[in-house]
Amino acid sequence: MTDEDYMRRAIELAHRGEGGVNPNPLVGAVIVKDGKILGEGAHLKFGDLHAERNAIKDAHRKGNDIKGATIYVTLEPCCHHGHQPPCTEAILEEGISKVIYGSRDPNPLVHGKGEKFLKEHGVLVTRDFLRDECDELNPVFFHYITAKTPYIVMKCAESLDGKIATVTGESKYISGEESRNEVMKMRNLYRGIMVGIGTVKADDPMLTCRLAGGGRNPIRIVCDTRLSTPLCSRLVMSACEVETIIACSERVSEEKAAEFKEQNIKIVKCPERDSEIDLTFLVKKLGEMEIDGILLEGGGILNASMLRAGLVDQVDLFIAPMILGGDAKTIVGGKGVEHLKDAWHFSIKGVEKCGEDLHVILRKMI
Amino acid sequence: MTDEDYMRRAIELAHRGEGGVNPNPLVGAVIVKDGKILGEGAHLKFGDLHAERNAIKDAHRKGNDIKGATIYVTLEPCCHHGHQPPCTEAILEEGISKVIYGSRDPNPLVHGKGEKFLKEHGVLVTRDFLRDECDELNPVFFHYITAKTPYIVMKCAESLDGKIATVTGESKYISGEESRNEVMKMRNLYRGIMVGIGTVKADDPMLTCRLAGGGRNPIRIVCDTRLSTPLCSRLVMSACEVETIIACSERVSEEKAAEFKEQNIKIVKCPERDSEIDLTFLVKKLGEMEIDGILLEGGGILNASMLRAGLVDQVDLFIAPMILGGDAKTIVGGKGVEHLKDAWHFSIKGVEKCGEDLHVILRKMI
Repeated sequence: MTDEDYMRRAIELAHRGEGGVNPNPLVGAVIVKDGKILGEGAHLKFGDLHAERNAIKDAHRKGNDIKGATIYVTLEPCCHHGHQPPCTEAILEEGISKVIYGSRDPNPLVHGKGEKFLKEHGVLVTRDFLRDECDELNPVFFHYITAKTPYIVMKCAESLDGKIATVTGESKYISGEESRNEVMKMRNLYRGIMVGIGTVKADDPMLTCRLAGGGRNPIRIVCDTRLSTPLCSRLVMSACEVETIIACSERVSEEKAAEFKEQNIKIVKCPERDSEIDLTFLVKKLGEMEIDGILLEGGGILNASMLRAGLVDQVDLFIAPMILGGDAKTIVGGKGVEHLKDAWHFSIKGVEKCGEDLHVILRKMI
Repeated sequence: MTDEDYMRRAIELAHRGEGGVNPNPLVGAVIVKDGKILGEGAHLKFGDLHAERNAIKDAHRKGNDIKGATIYVTLEPCCHHGHQPPCTEAILEEGISKVIYGSRDPNPLVHGKGEKFLKEHGVLVTRDFLRDECDELNPVFFHYITAKTPYIVMKCAESLDGKIATVTGESKYISGEESRNEVMKMRNLYRGIMVGIGTVKADDPMLTCRLAGGGRNPIRIVCDTRLSTPLCSRLVMSACEVETIIACSERVSEEKAAEFKEQNIKIVKCPERDSEIDLTFLVKKLGEMEIDGILLEGGGILNASMLRAGLVDQVDLFIAPMILGGDAKTIVGGKGVEHLKDAWHFSIKGVEKCGEDLHVILRKMI
């Protein structure tokens, strides 16, 4: 096995923390000596051991001596005291002699400190190793740590001609089973899920994570300017079990808001902009609530508003190989751009078959 | 090099006939002895030498002795007299001792005859070798030879949200340069190109093949029920240089038709169906005119009508990584299906990046 293989194994391990670590990053680590893997670990849960310490623990449990070993870790080891003691100290204590890491710490004030500390104590350090692949683990973390607002992923399922329903409104289901299962994985991955009031009224959705083998429910966020969510909707009725936020206009009365608060719903009042809630304001508030990533499952109207506000960082498009035709609703409605130069541009990061469908991942052009 | 490598080389050679051989198939051939390629050839032009004979000619020119050699050919060698003498005879005359072929002749009455003849004369034959890859060379030929109607490829360029223009109608250009160049290659590949009267009036297009390095112009076909194509349109004005057909209702007067005929335009009168020309009738007529494949570059209305008539065999979708939003026109308009079960289904045959865009190739589900 090569250095690349060990790092790819660390990347694989990192994914085990999906749904558990936010707003921390996904991190994986592998300890190797004489061509043998002696310990493996990942950061699995917010507040628990970091990947490096889990890998060390794994090596100890297996009775392996890791003195003089190399550790491959997807992110620069930390050297500060947070919920956990610094990983750099554990590395020294164990006598690990070489550290190969992928991603840099996104905080420029912190980046390099772990590396410097290790080098000063005689540990060999290689940085930026498979950095792009390691960075791909944590678009949410990198965004959140610098912008302090959630990384927003617009998820859409459409026909080949961009439709989300037939002309009569039939929409269940355009995408196939594999695609819908992929969406459940995404609901596990992101801390929040966002819809508009239109979707609540049309579909009465639960927005929970129904993954075979279990998953974590995202915090549900409804954009509802006039606070007209039905009190008998499944979202409201289940708010005691699943965290739920409704964002409405600051002009909504306290009495009305109280009816929802009684149902365990958090109300976030926002200023209005063009008769809609100010989404930029809302997203900042959600960031303050430690929501680091949001899966936007909006209809065409909310999607358009979020795009217009410049808040969509990623698009996950599931394209079903069927054509519906007619003037049916498309994934992005609203006013639309007048000129091509004003279009919202993305770049394709990945394409894969998902059952019979196509799953295209795009990132905002910067 | 392995058998696969030689056959893949033959497939590569076959492509050289693109734009030249219709309604014949694309065929490539490679002659090999003792691990050395002694001759290569393709069918390049309708009426000219077949691939096998071109490969033999190439070997002779190079002074190579091909007695006892193996020939790899993408399609079963023919054994009938057409514009050219049968290839099977050439193979015997040259003392080629083994034939490895990919595609079967699509005509069940013909398939196996070449193979049988060769075997009876002591030649070893292996069939179905890389058959799927060889078959991919000739969807047009396979369709046309059995259905006697053209193979129809709907080409569309859309934004991520299925739009072909902004809400104000701006459409130049949604797809990138590489995609537009790919479309020029398709115009070279298919014998006909079809648009509706809406496109003629909106864009006044030429529909010619503007390929760097040259290409063949497809026969232009306009679906124009009321025969309202402007006589001053670029299509009419250039009809002396580029073959042009207008399909209109049989109820259009002869006098009106005569104005177009004078401009060297072929008029195909069709019965009406729901106030539109009967597209099934038209397509059968075009087949009789030896048009074996058509690139459909329709707007949303014609695309919808062609789909509804069940006439679209393949979709080539160029998806540009931008979002336009609003109720702008999509690639397929018309009435649209009411229920998901009535959607037009396809299966994804291929996906590739084309510059910044995505090029998705889909085939009709059978």
